[in-house]
Amino acid sequence: MDVSELAARYDEELRTSDYADVDASANGLQVGSGDWTVEHVAFAVDAAVETIEAAVSAGADALVTHHGLSWGGIERVTGRDFDRVAPLIREDVALYVSHLPLDGHTSLGNAAGLADRLGLAGRERFGAMGSEYIGLAGTADALDPAGVRETLETDLDHGAGGVRHLDFGPDAIKDVAVVTGSGADWFDAAVERGADAFVTGEGKQKLYHQAKEAGVHVYLAGHYATETFGVNALADLADDWGVETTVLDAPTGI
Amino acid sequence: MDVSELAARYDEELRTSDYADVDASANGLQVGSGDWTVEHVAFAVDAAVETIEAAVSAGADALVTHHGLSWGGIERVTGRDFDRVAPLIREDVALYVSHLPLDGHTSLGNAAGLADRLGLAGRERFGAMGSEYIGLAGTADALDPAGVRETLETDLDHGAGGVRHLDFGPDAIKDVAVVTGSGADWFDAAVERGADAFVTGEGKQKLYHQAKEAGVHVYLAGHYATETFGVNALADLADDWGVETTVLDAPTGI
Amino acid sequence: MDVSELAARYDEELRTSDYADVDASANGLQVGSGDWTVEHVAFAVDAAVETIEAAVSAGADALVTHHGLSWGGIERVTGRDFDRVAPLIREDVALYVSHLPLDGHTSLGNAAGLADRLGLAGRERFGAMGSEYIGLAGTADALDPAGVRETLETDLDHGAGGVRHLDFGPDAIKDVAVVTGSGADWFDAAVERGADAFVTGEGKQKLYHQAKEAGVHVYLAGHYATETFGVNALADLADDWGVETTVLDAPTGI
Amino acid sequence: MDVSELAARYDEELRTSDYADVDASANGLQVGSGDWTVEHVAFAVDAAVETIEAAVSAGADALVTHHGLSWGGIERVTGRDFDRVAPLIREDVALYVSHLPLDGHTSLGNAAGLADRLGLAGRERFGAMGSEYIGLAGTADALDPAGVRETLETDLDHGAGGVRHLDFGPDAIKDVAVVTGSGADWFDAAVERGADAFVTGEGKQKLYHQAKEAGVHVYLAGHYATETFGVNALADLADDWGVETTVLDAPTGI
Amino acid sequence: MDVSELAARYDEELRTSDYADVDASANGLQVGSGDWTVEHVAFAVDAAVETIEAAVSAGADALVTHHGLSWGGIERVTGRDFDRVAPLIREDVALYVSHLPLDGHTSLGNAAGLADRLGLAGRERFGAMGSEYIGLAGTADALDPAGVRETLETDLDHGAGGVRHLDFGPDAIKDVAVVTGSGADWFDAAVERGADAFVTGEGKQKLYHQAKEAGVHVYLAGHYATETFGVNALADLADDWGVETTVLDAPTGI
Amino acid sequence: MDVSELAARYDEELRTSDYADVDASANGLQVGSGDWTVEHVAFAVDAAVETIEAAVSAGADALVTHHGLSWGGIERVTGRDFDRVAPLIREDVALYVSHLPLDGHTSLGNAAGLADRLGLAGRERFGAMGSEYIGLAGTADALDPAGVRETLETDLDHGAGGVRHLDFGPDAIKDVAVVTGSGADWFDAAVERGADAFVTGEGKQKLYHQAKEAGVHVYLAGHYATETFGVNALADLADDWGVETTVLDAPTGI
Repeated sequence: MDVSELAARYDEELRTSDYADVDASANGLQVGSGDWTVEHVAFAVDAAVETIEAAVSAGADALVTHHGLSWGGIERVTGRDFDRVAPLIREDVALYVSHLPLDGHTSLGNAAGLADRLGLAGRERFGAMGSEYIGLAGTADALDPAGVRETLETDLDHGAGGVRHLDFGPDAIKDVAVVTGSGADWFDAAVERGADAFVTGEGKQKLYHQAKEAGVHVYLAGHYATETFGVNALADLADDWGVETTVLDAPTGI
Repeated sequence: MDVSELAARYDEELRTSDYADVDASANGLQVGSGDWTVEHVAFAVDAAVETIEAAVSAGADALVTHHGLSWGGIERVTGRDFDRVAPLIREDVALYVSHLPLDGHTSLGNAAGLADRLGLAGRERFGAMGSEYIGLAGTADALDPAGVRETLETDLDHGAGGVRHLDFGPDAIKDVAVVTGSGADWFDAAVERGADAFVTGEGKQKLYHQAKEAGVHVYLAGHYATETFGVNALADLADDWGVETTVLDAPTGI
Repeated sequence: MDVSELAARYDEELRTSDYADVDASANGLQVGSGDWTVEHVAFAVDAAVETIEAAVSAGADALVTHHGLSWGGIERVTGRDFDRVAPLIREDVALYVSHLPLDGHTSLGNAAGLADRLGLAGRERFGAMGSEYIGLAGTADALDPAGVRETLETDLDHGAGGVRHLDFGPDAIKDVAVVTGSGADWFDAAVERGADAFVTGEGKQKLYHQAKEAGVHVYLAGHYATETFGVNALADLADDWGVETTVLDAPTGI
Repeated sequence: MDVSELAARYDEELRTSDYADVDASANGLQVGSGDWTVEHVAFAVDAAVETIEAAVSAGADALVTHHGLSWGGIERVTGRDFDRVAPLIREDVALYVSHLPLDGHTSLGNAAGLADRLGLAGRERFGAMGSEYIGLAGTADALDPAGVRETLETDLDHGAGGVRHLDFGPDAIKDVAVVTGSGADWFDAAVERGADAFVTGEGKQKLYHQAKEAGVHVYLAGHYATETFGVNALADLADDWGVETTVLDAPTGI
Repeated sequence: MDVSELAARYDEELRTSDYADVDASANGLQVGSGDWTVEHVAFAVDAAVETIEAAVSAGADALVTHHGLSWGGIERVTGRDFDRVAPLIREDVALYVSHLPLDGHTSLGNAAGLADRLGLAGRERFGAMGSEYIGLAGTADALDPAGVRETLETDLDHGAGGVRHLDFGPDAIKDVAVVTGSGADWFDAAVERGADAFVTGEGKQKLYHQAKEAGVHVYLAGHYATETFGVNALADLADDWGVETTVLDAPTGI
Repeated sequence: MDVSELAARYDEELRTSDYADVDASANGLQVGSGDWTVEHVAFAVDAAVETIEAAVSAGADALVTHHGLSWGGIERVTGRDFDRVAPLIREDVALYVSHLPLDGHTSLGNAAGLADRLGLAGRERFGAMGSEYIGLAGTADALDPAGVRETLETDLDHGAGGVRHLDFGPDAIKDVAVVTGSGADWFDAAVERGADAFVTGEGKQKLYHQAKEAGVHVYLAGHYATETFGVNALADLADDWGVETTVLDAPTGI
């Protein structure tokens, strides 16, 4: 398979073009020639020197990440962008990126993976971004608030970080809304939905009082930790296509 | 003193109007009648039900906060905004807000207070926001990276949170840039300045690899924890003016 | 019935959400708690100290107006906005607002009420505002231009003002376009439609020569005077719902 | 003198270029050839068929107006614009326009002329529009509110209209702010200045309650009626330059 | 037939209103009265003094052009715009304009006419401009690159100019994309389509290396020369309607 | 000297930062590491595969061009951008770009070089772009129009193109305005200045009639041909700094 074919398969599965107007990230193939042959793909949450070098070491022809290098265009291929682009080009490693399409995909996505861990049922798309969605919401059978925290703490890859629980919700959690990464701006939508708990990655100062006043549990489980599901699912897809895969672990603890 | 006079004094000291074009916050008097008499002022980082009720309980005529209620206008005085505005109006408590003017004030500001704790010398304005600044930078006499962390951990009011140290910088810290609150977008400016360490409140996922690749220490000391300095300084001012003051403690741990 | 229920019923009847993108007014519930019980509703064209105090005096739990307080957000609850919001909150009176949805509603709306008085037939939506409409147009059986003036003069509530007639149209009026309030910008659309007469509230200087050159009657019947129909119709609706109602009279003469 | 010279003299006197960024009107020469010789200039408030035909009848080579034909460009020279442009071109009459520069000129302007009639002293520029001004404010020696109305009623050219007085201010008027034409949006600035009375041309519905709540007199003296001063002053200038002049009277009563 | 009728027929045929949002040109009737009678229409690529005078000399009542006078509005009818508008008005010649609608019309349009000359089959709309198109693409039976140049050189009206061939494509041309006039910005779309040759009017510096690197033939056949087809087709239509027609020749060589 | 030093010297000389807001081009260092050592610099008008490969062949460490690769950011380092960026990175060749700063520099710039060839005196900055300029104007001692054409034809590097002369001006040229490259939008400014001749690179269709009606000579001397002066001057500067230089010749004929 060549790089163009790999990118086309992912683009179709992830509906890349449908997110073009709502995502600052230039999703799809970001660096490299479409003609290169792909036999081994590496996967990581972030495109950074650490992961790019690891991909090269693993012998990968392509690196697939959730966070890429072009957010509205690379102004200059200098400094940090040079340090990241140069090894990709020198070592013939293509970079494929899927940001919001991978957050919101209903089965492969980050929110979907997190919902799996929490055992959510009756799932609906959640976290509107223009005409698309970047999260999921679902129902549960009276989850214990401390138990949810424990699940997130033990099942996710936190690096030096952990889970912060704003413990302001009811004793039994029956409805959960999830927006992985930096999802604080969708907290009000979770309240409007009637969610008992809102799970996201990074916190924002305003969330504390918002949660306290709304009487809703908030779990800040880490940006990195909540976003490993998607790239793992894309690795599984590549496995199915007969491509060798390596999933890189580089937790930020943030 | 009446509310108008109090607001006018703070506005002049903080140069409120100079920040009008760069701050989404409607700085200055946000809620209340300018004719009310002020004998007792409460101070808090956030304007929220918790702090508003505490101000009422303390018998305050006015509440001064860093984060207010109007960010580009209060669309509707319903829901959360109603819950916050209503007790202010029913109990005749005026709300005065100073966001970015208080972050960047070179002696009263949040960054200034944090720079004091770190003992920074040769201070310069840092963290450009249009034609204004919201942070400070300065030099130090070879600070120990772990020591900086300890200082931030012990001297600041973290609530349930703490300090995260991205330990990627040199062994001796000689130049420090500070943007309190959510300052990650100014990390590159800190690198350009040649800072050895960057101190801010909230983290963002991208900061991890940026710090690692730049070889700079990053301290994520908490949004709330880094922003108590300013309102405390404003309380001292009010003390000088002969007004009774109460500083409210409501750490978010975020 | 509680405030939320009242607002929901009106929102559905008036299609509030359909006008969200074309109206600067924050239509729907603007001030108050959705949990309050509503037994008595007051109605007025304008939300102002005069009408708010009258609503309080009447013992109303809610005030429904055509012109509200939030036009793109209340920047500060101080000065005029404080004087209007404070009595609502202190006296537990909710404020529900319907601006353009109430202008253009084909049976309850301001233009519809005015068209009723003029006996217009074959009505069509008129006065495009994005994808919605804020007026009505219709046909008549050769109305006498002076008679139209007389009808508007006697049937409407002008306060100190009156009707100005720009008498430039034909002797017999067979087609009339109506945009209540400040409708001068739709005069050209009325000409394009082939209307013999255009009825609106406030005048604008340019209308005089536009009407003279187009050979069309213009009636400037007063902003307030042309916009009492809608809130009266909403009062009738509330009556049907078993709520006590008071329609407040506060003509501006403008 | 040719048309270019006439336009250049007015442009310099009125500082036309300084208003370029704040005025939708294309001020300066709007229609005609700069090479035409000017011996006779007509003056009117509005450029319309009525005034253009009167200028032609008077034998004018140029028409100078306050309201012109190009507001952000003439989309098509058809319909109303054709009816106005065609006689200018066919009869070799140039059109020179001065909108906001003529409103705000401190001696020749519309507000200045109105201030003269009211005998205002200590005049200051008022009515900010970007970095320029379109009105004037000044002080008076305890004017009688009814007397001000009478002065405006008798001294101005109202056509079929008249003066509306919102009689909400103090018994003695000591400070007056003036924005001629459609000035309602500057009412709050008048209040902030501490004016006892605000004089403008057209009304807007919201002014009524604003004036009532602020306790300030408002005089709605007519858009046309308040804007004859400027063109008369420009006629006087042309007289001084030795050009024959005709001031056209075409009141709109609005 | 009167001018309104002529304009209405062309507007319908060319779908003028569908291009309103994507074209800076004010398409449709640009100058004149809709009431004038039309017996003789002149046609030209550009509305300029040369063609307007020629239309007058020919005794035309209307001039139909591809490039008109209003591109976002005529700021002032002075200088160049006066020199062009004045003879139209003085001689009662209406100006009808069709810019992008005439470029992209699938049978009457400029690209269609050029495609006819090249004998393209399997035509598809090409050159997206918002939701509309301004060019055509089609297939050919292995055209000879030099032969295409010869055809464009001999069949088109170049005035002092000629055809520039960027000879970077394959020996046999099987797919051609056409955007007449200034089409360089659609070169990448032609490459994406898989075209072997791209034909446009004006060149842009960047096209040279783009064509060379993509391995595609580019023909710069002249802006004027590629855009005579449309107005000739409109003349044929007018002939069918029984109107006398004159096609004016005024090549720019650009 | 390292790349950073080279870029800093050019940036200072060319006032790169002053053009940041008016130029879509990301001027300054566009590709490469600032740490690289520079011993040999190549210069070209365009950054394209042809010139980049020639720079590599010449053994250059850096390439300096007038037209670069980043115009508002490189969306993806794929396709054409990959083909150009990849050899720069693989061969360790830095790319430095100066677009408008190099057009308008009063001694090193493209317009300055062209003005030298024409022997223009009394030079003034011309061709306003925001607060900066991109051309020059000056006076001459009655130049012969055909002679100017001949000078441009023989002295410039046209490749397959040549000079087009729109011969509409006076017999003796005494004032010349120059905007190299694509300067047609500044023709009106040249007329306003009173220039007898306007020299630019690329033509635009509208220029023909504009020049004819204004009675001004226009010389379309080629985009590439008019823009070799600047990069040659930068090469001379580098020579002075003791760096080996190669000026690459790659005329586009456009």
